[in-house]
Amino acid sequence: MSSLCQVIRRAIQLRGNHVATRFAEREHTWEEIGGRVARLGGALRALGVREGDRVAILALNSDRYYEYYFAVPWTGAVFVPINTRLAPAEIVYWLNDSESSVLFIDDTFLAPLAAIADQLATLRTRIYLGEGPPPEGFVAYEKLIQAGEPIAASSRGGDDLAGLFYTGGTTGRSKGVMLSHRGLTLNPLQAQPIFQFSPEDVFLHAAPMFHLADGFFCMAAATFGVRNVFLPAFNPVQVLETIQSERITHALLVPTMVNMVVHHPDVGRYDLSSLQRVLYGASPMPEAVIRRAMDVIPHATFVQAYGQTEASPVLTLLGPEYHTTEGPYAGKLASAGCAIPGVDLAILDAEGREVPRRRIGEICARADNVMLGYWKLPEITAETLRDGWLHTGDGGYMDEEGFVFIVDRVKDMIISGGENVYSAEVENAIYQHEAVAECAVIGIPHATRGEQVHAVVRCKEGKMLSEEELSTHCRRLIAAFKCPRSVEFVTAPLPLSGAGKILKRELRKPYWEGQERNVH
Amino acid sequence: MSSLCQVIRRAIQLRGNHVATRFAEREHTWEEIGGRVARLGGALRALGVREGDRVAILALNSDRYYEYYFAVPWTGAVFVPINTRLAPAEIVYWLNDSESSVLFIDDTFLAPLAAIADQLATLRTRIYLGEGPPPEGFVAYEKLIQAGEPIAASSRGGDDLAGLFYTGGTTGRSKGVMLSHRGLTLNPLQAQPIFQFSPEDVFLHAAPMFHLADGFFCMAAATFGVRNVFLPAFNPVQVLETIQSERITHALLVPTMVNMVVHHPDVGRYDLSSLQRVLYGASPMPEAVIRRAMDVIPHATFVQAYGQTEASPVLTLLGPEYHTTEGPYAGKLASAGCAIPGVDLAILDAEGREVPRRRIGEICARADNVMLGYWKLPEITAETLRDGWLHTGDGGYMDEEGFVFIVDRVKDMIISGGENVYSAEVENAIYQHEAVAECAVIGIPHATRGEQVHAVVRCKEGKMLSEEELSTHCRRLIAAFKCPRSVEFVTAPLPLSGAGKILKRELRKPYWEGQERNVH
Repeated sequence: MSSLCQVIRRAIQLRGNHVATRFAEREHTWEEIGGRVARLGGALRALGVREGDRVAILALNSDRYYEYYFAVPWTGAVFVPINTRLAPAEIVYWLNDSESSVLFIDDTFLAPLAAIADQLATLRTRIYLGEGPPPEGFVAYEKLIQAGEPIAASSRGGDDLAGLFYTGGTTGRSKGVMLSHRGLTLNPLQAQPIFQFSPEDVFLHAAPMFHLADGFFCMAAATFGVRNVFLPAFNPVQVLETIQSERITHALLVPTMVNMVVHHPDVGRYDLSSLQRVLYGASPMPEAVIRRAMDVIPHATFVQAYGQTEASPVLTLLGPEYHTTEGPYAGKLASAGCAIPGVDLAILDAEGREVPRRRIGEICARADNVMLGYWKLPEITAETLRDGWLHTGDGGYMDEEGFVFIVDRVKDMIISGGENVYSAEVENAIYQHEAVAECAVIGIPHATRGEQVHAVVRCKEGKMLSEEELSTHCRRLIAAFKCPRSVEFVTAPLPLSGAGKILKRELRKPYWEGQERNVH
Repeated sequence: MSSLCQVIRRAIQLRGNHVATRFAEREHTWEEIGGRVARLGGALRALGVREGDRVAILALNSDRYYEYYFAVPWTGAVFVPINTRLAPAEIVYWLNDSESSVLFIDDTFLAPLAAIADQLATLRTRIYLGEGPPPEGFVAYEKLIQAGEPIAASSRGGDDLAGLFYTGGTTGRSKGVMLSHRGLTLNPLQAQPIFQFSPEDVFLHAAPMFHLADGFFCMAAATFGVRNVFLPAFNPVQVLETIQSERITHALLVPTMVNMVVHHPDVGRYDLSSLQRVLYGASPMPEAVIRRAMDVIPHATFVQAYGQTEASPVLTLLGPEYHTTEGPYAGKLASAGCAIPGVDLAILDAEGREVPRRRIGEICARADNVMLGYWKLPEITAETLRDGWLHTGDGGYMDEEGFVFIVDRVKDMIISGGENVYSAEVENAIYQHEAVAECAVIGIPHATRGEQVHAVVRCKEGKMLSEEELSTHCRRLIAAFKCPRSVEFVTAPLPLSGAGKILKRELRKPYWEGQERNVH
């Protein structure tokens, strides 16, 4: 039976003496990680954690976060990584909804926790991840490990619940996605034909570890014996410095991060020659950004991943050979790639029938990496997993060679005067204007058309753009009915979710106050 | 949920217009295979085959065998591939024990089937795989497909039974190994990091398709969209010709086959430049043979697989970089490689405790690719899968880097005068003598020692060897108590199982007549 404990056991068996984690000056081998995980597991059990209990974490990235990801399943418990950008009320909701009894927390979040301390109904134990003496009422992380009696790995695995990942919440209320040992251990194997990790690789965790996009790479690194290097949080200069100093070979960077790194004024000063592969995903990459990236780090190859937390998370991959704008593969760059092995992907219509190639429908999947369901939400689970298919909520189509083109979140699609407008298509047009730094296209209420296409645009520093210029630009690229009818120019960066996606819900909010938006 | 039907669905989705199978002059694309499988599935259902029913096949290799492997699960039934080298009584046993209601059969096996026709208790339908008009009482394969109404794939998958593979029977009575959709679809993903199939590859099925060693590659080829080329049966000249004419990139050859191919006098006349990778396994490869192979096809790389039917079947792999006798990896060639990802491997003692590195014990595994159990044999199942571990029956040890060295089938180990003698070790010593073509070392009864080390040796054509010469040779390489006390020189090739393993049971039989051998 597959289990996350076995993943660590095998890493120790094959790579015991090799470096597993590196955080600032601290380094541990796989053998050491194995010993620490077994002792931390023993310490958790001594604290009363039983199999199936939820154990949460609220922290920036670190090697200790990595150990948490394996110590919790080692003791048979369920990890609950908490989004570091939540409002206090949301933290309360996640901890209480998951009924977490233990929380790992670092210095950054001590104050927010103090503010909500009296609202936490189930929390019994607080474990302090910081360096100094723990605050009163907290247990020190390293002390726990030193004192912990190593235990044998829990026998949980297969379909047993391994982790609860709350959805980013770009639309609606957070839901706890229940992921199994099987799904989390399988997904790295499904992605490996394209990722091609080898034990000599060094992976940079600069994206937040609470999000499964990076969580996936925590599992993958252990599966393939790859070294992990952690940055507390994303910062373009630190990313550049770390690639150079740690000889990073692989990095996950969501599109907004890629954008910031490759446009950084000092990018040319760093030695990025070790970088073999940049993995990106979580949201579609504007073509202009990926082209710039291919210019700045020409020796690196790119892999696009598409998926969602509900799929543990990868569903499709676009390999390096398709990151080209010439030759027989030209045009594939606009796609999210093909179903990875073990994923049965289909584009279904509203009645659940498979649509012909190039016809738009909802992207659906059947696979062992699909979630067990939403925590304590049987109705939404049944609706999302109906007829055995995971309904992703994303609209898209498939070409003759199985490449999936995502046209939009079904929820972000705009219906204006009876026509479907895919915001991604409009955004792609807008991004092609050289003055644009960032943009988002949303539907806002319109008396007769139902919705109107509205753009929120931030220009590059020192650049200007008028509504009319933008309109003229768009009309040259896309049909008139898709062009923005109204534009809002902003100077502040657009609001981002924990996964680095633009929060369209936030942008829509002022326009829809007091009105119900009809979500398709 | 994982299923073999999804594997075919994905191959069609991604590789529809590419050639899937090639047998002599006949060629089918994945799209065509998909259509044929759906119609054959419909025809089987019309013949009364229900979900979970067993559908057997007794045939030489062909593209139709390949279609069988997917049409049977498509209709929700269970495939039962029958060893082509069985005695009639054994065929009766397999068909009756599995309660197969349908049998696919080709010309080669019509006569043997006729001889046992009245002993088949459950068989209702015979499907004729040959080209001409079917014999009376048989249904023609192509007619079935032409007339069949295509059906949607069965929804069986995951832990549902997909296939019954009877064990080769090198020791004791055949047992039906129950393999799941999950195990059979997962194993190619676990092996892919080392096999590294890409869609441009062309795989040669020269090993018998009834055996899971090749069955595995049927599944793997569909998983990665690789072209399949079939030879009816293994023949060294045909293998050489086909590699040249079909530009074969990957081939599975069990050690005895590798031996025959690389020592063939005409090997130098063929263009083998397309051959990228030779996969071997099913039994350990004598070092002398692999060295010769590396000389003859220097551009090809080698991968050794170790496993057993009970593991769907791969457990460990030895990658190309370890096929060297120099440098830091020297010595690894004698091993079977490391656990593939998703396999938790351990060397356990008789009490089920993990032994230290380099200590010999039984090779055991926990993984999603482990069988569901033995068909209708709950006691042997419980014994083989005790404490959640698959007990392989193979003795071995693990080095510091996780490489597994197989010392022997636990059943082939010789206990002589209280000392454990591993026959593989003795055979390796004997093979190093340049006069030896083939050998097997077995335990024969000895009045005081319990067992005596006995060698059966076939010399190369034109070469001679005396018992004394062999004894002197061995004493230079291994401890005296391991050296053969008696040698039998033979001129005929040693008896082989369907998997190409030397049938030591057959060799032992005359010596143990009327005596019970104490199997450790």
